[in-house]
Amino acid sequence: MALSHFDDQGRAHMVDVSDKPVTARIAVAEGHITMSDATLALVMEGRAAKGDVLGTARLAGIMGAKRCADLIPLCHPLPITKVSLDLTCDTALPGVRITATVKTTGQTGVEMEALTAVSVAALTVHDMVKAVQKDMVIGGIRVTLKDGGKSGRFTAE
Amino acid sequence: MALSHFDDQGRAHMVDVSDKPVTARIAVAEGHITMSDATLALVMEGRAAKGDVLGTARLAGIMGAKRCADLIPLCHPLPITKVSLDLTCDTALPGVRITATVKTTGQTGVEMEALTAVSVAALTVHDMVKAVQKDMVIGGIRVTLKDGGKSGRFTAE
Amino acid sequence: MALSHFDDQGRAHMVDVSDKPVTARIAVAEGHITMSDATLALVMEGRAAKGDVLGTARLAGIMGAKRCADLIPLCHPLPITKVSLDLTCDTALPGVRITATVKTTGQTGVEMEALTAVSVAALTVHDMVKAVQKDMVIGGIRVTLKDGGKSGRFTAE
Amino acid sequence: MALSHFDDQGRAHMVDVSDKPVTARIAVAEGHITMSDATLALVMEGRAAKGDVLGTARLAGIMGAKRCADLIPLCHPLPITKVSLDLTCDTALPGVRITATVKTTGQTGVEMEALTAVSVAALTVHDMVKAVQKDMVIGGIRVTLKDGGKSGRFTAE
Amino acid sequence: MALSHFDDQGRAHMVDVSDKPVTARIAVAEGHITMSDATLALVMEGRAAKGDVLGTARLAGIMGAKRCADLIPLCHPLPITKVSLDLTCDTALPGVRITATVKTTGQTGVEMEALTAVSVAALTVHDMVKAVQKDMVIGGIRVTLKDGGKSGRFTAE
Amino acid sequence: MALSHFDDQGRAHMVDVSDKPVTARIAVAEGHITMSDATLALVMEGRAAKGDVLGTARLAGIMGAKRCADLIPLCHPLPITKVSLDLTCDTALPGVRITATVKTTGQTGVEMEALTAVSVAALTVHDMVKAVQKDMVIGGIRVTLKDGGKSGRFTAE
Repeated sequence: MALSHFDDQGRAHMVDVSDKPVTARIAVAEGHITMSDATLALVMEGRAAKGDVLGTARLAGIMGAKRCADLIPLCHPLPITKVSLDLTCDTALPGVRITATVKTTGQTGVEMEALTAVSVAALTVHDMVKAVQKDMVIGGIRVTLKDGGKSGRFTAE
Repeated sequence: MALSHFDDQGRAHMVDVSDKPVTARIAVAEGHITMSDATLALVMEGRAAKGDVLGTARLAGIMGAKRCADLIPLCHPLPITKVSLDLTCDTALPGVRITATVKTTGQTGVEMEALTAVSVAALTVHDMVKAVQKDMVIGGIRVTLKDGGKSGRFTAE
Repeated sequence: MALSHFDDQGRAHMVDVSDKPVTARIAVAEGHITMSDATLALVMEGRAAKGDVLGTARLAGIMGAKRCADLIPLCHPLPITKVSLDLTCDTALPGVRITATVKTTGQTGVEMEALTAVSVAALTVHDMVKAVQKDMVIGGIRVTLKDGGKSGRFTAE
Repeated sequence: MALSHFDDQGRAHMVDVSDKPVTARIAVAEGHITMSDATLALVMEGRAAKGDVLGTARLAGIMGAKRCADLIPLCHPLPITKVSLDLTCDTALPGVRITATVKTTGQTGVEMEALTAVSVAALTVHDMVKAVQKDMVIGGIRVTLKDGGKSGRFTAE
Repeated sequence: MALSHFDDQGRAHMVDVSDKPVTARIAVAEGHITMSDATLALVMEGRAAKGDVLGTARLAGIMGAKRCADLIPLCHPLPITKVSLDLTCDTALPGVRITATVKTTGQTGVEMEALTAVSVAALTVHDMVKAVQKDMVIGGIRVTLKDGGKSGRFTAE
Repeated sequence: MALSHFDDQGRAHMVDVSDKPVTARIAVAEGHITMSDATLALVMEGRAAKGDVLGTARLAGIMGAKRCADLIPLCHPLPITKVSLDLTCDTALPGVRITATVKTTGQTGVEMEALTAVSVAALTVHDMVKAVQKDMVIGGIRVTLKDGGKSGRFTAE
């Protein structure tokens, strides 16, 4: 099996999707950022009262999804029709769990847009909290659902 | 302790660094993307012969570092003076390990630029390999070194 | 009545337009920047001979329309099919009146693109003239026509 | 008096600031968006409970300030050191009042950045509320304070 | 004959393509950068072993094609469906020859995207090699094929 | 001699300029676009009366200079302090000659910014005139002056 982003001489190119049908597509991605109990408590306080870390990260993630084709060299620009992010504090982690859902009506999938949304949201949480904790870790970033294209429905286990 | 990105009424703002001295600063961040042995073998083949996934991801990471202040709402724009990325295939993971080093001569640190470089590089690997494996996971994204600012030298354990 | 850009838990999201039909859409917006008679005379001289403030602002407005989805967090990216701006000197104001017309064939309207075009054009006039007058005021920015979507034709009184 | 953004043949150029000293600079701009009492009530409800229009607009304004040199053709790129926005509901207007403060340590002023921040914040309020009212008007956008440059301190009356 | 990018009063505008049919379109552009034999030898060495100038320029060209509508004031944003670049060392020139192919399914052509891809790739070669030679020259940038629109097929002689 | 944009393992990186002094720097680049006599006549008419191709291209070039570090992967972002472009119709070519001058006070040179300004201006001329002539050629893009850095003054013969 070969990697689709290279031609037969191994040169990177943007895959030709000209002949693919325009279909409704959806992708969901998830990830998290782990931090100490004390840091998470600060984030949760802000959520409850003022200083909304999660709201800022949500917007950054939505805007990040729109910049995906600017950031990822071989991604196709796509007319995104919906982006939403869900950020929740998880004291068992401890940290913040992030899920992004992206939809389009287009010729190729939106899993990179969903993954970019999660990544930018996680980076934004990191940025806003880094003054109180430097050793946070971003992880678990993966696609959990992809549907609407030729390759059929994919759901992560 | 309070989060620095909010004023005393809890409103998000870009922290005032006007009075901070201009100093030489460095940050190093790391992360990885895990995949199956078979997928990693494809990436390594490309590295050896043609279809250079890691070279593409390296450039995407470098360019991503320059876009950091566009993506992260409260980040200061900074005149980056150096970016380098190191991507290595690790068969024990199995997957690709990514390290980014960023330097500036400025009034605030560059750890967000380094973390953004790692994230964009990891997303680019995902994009280029996703046709052969859908359940890769990006993780372990964290700062490992930060130096040159008021808060002194930080190194991850 | 609820605000459409929030879900039922009050979280900002990009509204899902996946199921809206692709239709021909148009929006027109207007605005103005007021200045002193003497400043307006300088702008008009430039128009007549050299130093074309209005031509520069017109181009900035056209380019601004294309950046709308980058600037407004919850705006959908849209394939704009036409942008034009009309800037006229009005000695009664005194100042410059700006009108922008934007069209698309898409799933959502383009009034934000038209408003952004007017705003960026007005800011550009301000930038180019600010060396001679600091107390100009930008105002009257509003939608005057919107048509082609589900909500029907809107015209300002 | 001549417009500084044109050379002696009337051709637009970016003014040469190479020989200007690097100084601490600040600019404050203001503006507002007027709406009906009913619409303002919806915005205020959201502020109190959920669906934070003002928080979203604040972030858009901060990010907009960073994009100023991308939008305004002859603006110099500047290392912004602080941006803050204040958005308040004014039932007497009725509508939302916006103030933006921008600082830099550089060779030219930041009033365009402050004006851009106010404009983008106002456009974002419009975007989020337009489903309930189409005839809102953005106005009163002007510089209220500028200090730190050769031309001295300017304050609006 | 008149220039299409101006209205009947000579004002620049983005041409209205709203009523043009959505068709499959392709454009090919070419160009080259000339350098000394010694410089070209360095580029070719890198190609064979390490330090891949051409691979970096190829990616820059692909990403440049996606930024075309951001750079060229009156260009329409288009959903690009394919971009590929071919860079070859030509010892007869001596220098590097660049060809870019861009496709879309849209309402207007993609020759500007192809020309932008070639230009950005050539600039990137220049950037990477300029430490060893300052007097390289970029030239021969032109459209060699355009097809799929109302004006029919164009091929350069 | 080695290419500076690769490390000793041949991996592309952004060269470290952290230890270079901040100096005043200037670069001048030139280029041209050739067209038929008839097309040039149309451009010149517009210049004289209305439909200002050269004014539009000048602004696009100025804005392009500011986007250089976004387009060229290994370019450092720089605080540009001046950009100007000169576009003149040359009936002997026949076509348009373009010269760009860029200045900065920084740690690295601005020849890439000047070359990018010329390239984007030439592409913009092409875009605006392509409806009347498809076989124009952009060429002669090169650096004619570079000064202010460690490598001393360079002038093209």
